[in-house]
Amino acid sequence: MSGVPRPLNPSPRLLMGPGPVDVDPRVLRAMSMPMLGQFDPEFTRFMGETMAAYRQVFRTANRWTFLIDGTARAGIEAALASLIEPGDTVLVPIFGRFGHLLAEIAGRSGGRVETIEAEWGTVFEPGRAIEAMRRLRPKLVACVHGDTSTTLAQPLAEIGQACREIDAILYADATASLGGMDIRVDEWRVDVMTAGLQKCLSGPPGSAPITFNDRAETRIVRRKHIEAGIRPEGAQNGPGRRIQSNYFDLAMLMDYWSEARLNHHTEATSMLYAAHECARVVLEEGLDAVFARHARVSRGLTAGLRAMGLELFGDQRHKMPNVTGVVIPKDVDGEGVRGMMLADFGIEIGTSFGPLRGRIWRIGTMGYGASPRNVLLCLGALEASLRAKGFRAPAGAGVDAALAAFANKAAA
Amino acid sequence: MSGVPRPLNPSPRLLMGPGPVDVDPRVLRAMSMPMLGQFDPEFTRFMGETMAAYRQVFRTANRWTFLIDGTARAGIEAALASLIEPGDTVLVPIFGRFGHLLAEIAGRSGGRVETIEAEWGTVFEPGRAIEAMRRLRPKLVACVHGDTSTTLAQPLAEIGQACREIDAILYADATASLGGMDIRVDEWRVDVMTAGLQKCLSGPPGSAPITFNDRAETRIVRRKHIEAGIRPEGAQNGPGRRIQSNYFDLAMLMDYWSEARLNHHTEATSMLYAAHECARVVLEEGLDAVFARHARVSRGLTAGLRAMGLELFGDQRHKMPNVTGVVIPKDVDGEGVRGMMLADFGIEIGTSFGPLRGRIWRIGTMGYGASPRNVLLCLGALEASLRAKGFRAPAGAGVDAALAAFANKAAA
Repeated sequence: MSGVPRPLNPSPRLLMGPGPVDVDPRVLRAMSMPMLGQFDPEFTRFMGETMAAYRQVFRTANRWTFLIDGTARAGIEAALASLIEPGDTVLVPIFGRFGHLLAEIAGRSGGRVETIEAEWGTVFEPGRAIEAMRRLRPKLVACVHGDTSTTLAQPLAEIGQACREIDAILYADATASLGGMDIRVDEWRVDVMTAGLQKCLSGPPGSAPITFNDRAETRIVRRKHIEAGIRPEGAQNGPGRRIQSNYFDLAMLMDYWSEARLNHHTEATSMLYAAHECARVVLEEGLDAVFARHARVSRGLTAGLRAMGLELFGDQRHKMPNVTGVVIPKDVDGEGVRGMMLADFGIEIGTSFGPLRGRIWRIGTMGYGASPRNVLLCLGALEASLRAKGFRAPAGAGVDAALAAFANKAAA
Repeated sequence: MSGVPRPLNPSPRLLMGPGPVDVDPRVLRAMSMPMLGQFDPEFTRFMGETMAAYRQVFRTANRWTFLIDGTARAGIEAALASLIEPGDTVLVPIFGRFGHLLAEIAGRSGGRVETIEAEWGTVFEPGRAIEAMRRLRPKLVACVHGDTSTTLAQPLAEIGQACREIDAILYADATASLGGMDIRVDEWRVDVMTAGLQKCLSGPPGSAPITFNDRAETRIVRRKHIEAGIRPEGAQNGPGRRIQSNYFDLAMLMDYWSEARLNHHTEATSMLYAAHECARVVLEEGLDAVFARHARVSRGLTAGLRAMGLELFGDQRHKMPNVTGVVIPKDVDGEGVRGMMLADFGIEIGTSFGPLRGRIWRIGTMGYGASPRNVLLCLGALEASLRAKGFRAPAGAGVDAALAAFANKAAA
């Protein structure tokens, strides 16, 4: 194929799957600001302001709070590759697809990976994870906070406390939950947390906020090996084993994001603009207001789905407010319903992975997309699509139940 | 620090350093298009169109031509981590800072790295590299094409031919040169090439185009290990050693970018829009016209610099047209001149690394920024800044010489 391609021209969508979701227009506009050089004093100031903004979003005082230049998965790999030395025991409690991903990346990073599994649709009773920790004495516990594959979130505070007792580092993946749920990195004693922009932060995929504390820093700095060609005279490498990735080497990234400003990659300028605006938009609304909005929208959506005679998936006590699992009714062509919603209504909802593939739909109400209006549009489209595929929900019941939930100021 | 951050508001700049450079406004606008879901048929079509566009830019028929979601360095690491198995001999011919980077990443990927070095400011006479290849019999030769640190480009065709003879894979890093010089992946027998958007492709840093042929594919697929949690029933892992990175696993990325559409990361939507538009803009102007423009602009700039009494750095027979090294005159405060150009004229030029730090300036004329207008503005600002710092160039000589060069249709 040759010739001049036509400009891309995406059709309008309402993205209500598990992410990416619709980006806040302010974030889209931020990406069209012009470049600055990577060591322009104005740009390094922007880097500092971005660090400060994400400290607030993560509710942490951690100095080391910055961005990994890649999608959420890049943040995970940066954390695990920098923290795990070959042979280290790593415990991964798995309650959905992304726990398997953590185990996979931990293994590739050289870890001796031990897993415990909870049935998809449940989370770990903390005591069970703590018992495994005490038995296995891992150097690192890697746990998903909110696993979009099952829509559930794992309580972390007790696990964080137990990690201190056995001197393990706790890494948590908050890709799906940061900006949608009240996450308290310091209070929960999470040592390292990463996220992505493309869910509750209302940004595009491609930048991964990370934060880590001095316990993690100590382990990372031991492994510092500044690359040849830019090593300042007299700079010492650490005694630990060199991190196997250059791009994800947090020790070098610390030098790049600090006053040392040692060259590493070229920071992804437009994605930094986006990441900064994502944080700014959340902080302008106020973290608590943002979380309350997600919770309210979830109540409206779940009320509507139940009124349609649909069953919610998973242990509802641990459901994330920003994504809702719906059991696909018996004899309904789940992909047919999803396809019709996309083709006729321009609304995207998701299915899931592995044991849940084709068994549940996932409806995202994340960040900018977490609005009563989106819930009402989605319920109406779902009802019509279900009817077309042979499942009769009581006409109008879903939308009316959601409207009632939103009108109920006391409950909502 | 707490409170609501102010929106970022970058000052106007003319970025004429070694990159990132000013982004084409059409690319900036492309990034503000709304999201699509990652498996939306429209988005997977966009992925296919992006692959087709980059095949043209790379002048290749390689099926495997796609994007790595990270900066240029991410592309390098994806190539090297996927191709190098622990213990493989890797030969890196080094003629500037980025050769050291390739050696560094190859070492972290487990390679037994052998290097040969050419003095900064020169490139390898191909016979010298070929002699080393015949002696060392590397499995992989990793070479920078255009090294911005020295402004020079290494001829690759003879090295490519020699790699076939010893059954080595040739990887080349074209971050600095793709879109600015006539690069012929297939004709030169380069097996794997990566680049970035932020130089001659007029885009922001954050996406790394990659292309590789069937010789590379064979080696990569041997190492295919699909991650747990998404492995289709009956799918077989390859006999080779698992790639140590998940994010940079080209075997899994092939499944994501092909009709298999096996979930990996979530493609960085806005950066894909940018990457597509970068290629489109180049193809619309026409590759040969783009290269001629870079060459013409380089002739004007070098004529102007010489007329000011400045010395160009490096072997001019191998100079890239898109970046020009200038020897900082004796007794001139090079950083003072750069600082004044930025503060008073809003024009950024670069210095260099390692042995060239503070010894040369680097002036970029890349992609959208490769224009006679930018050259004239830069020369005028440089002359005034030099004068302020005690170096007297003949007044107006630089601009006049550049104007004359641009007016000379025959030569230019």
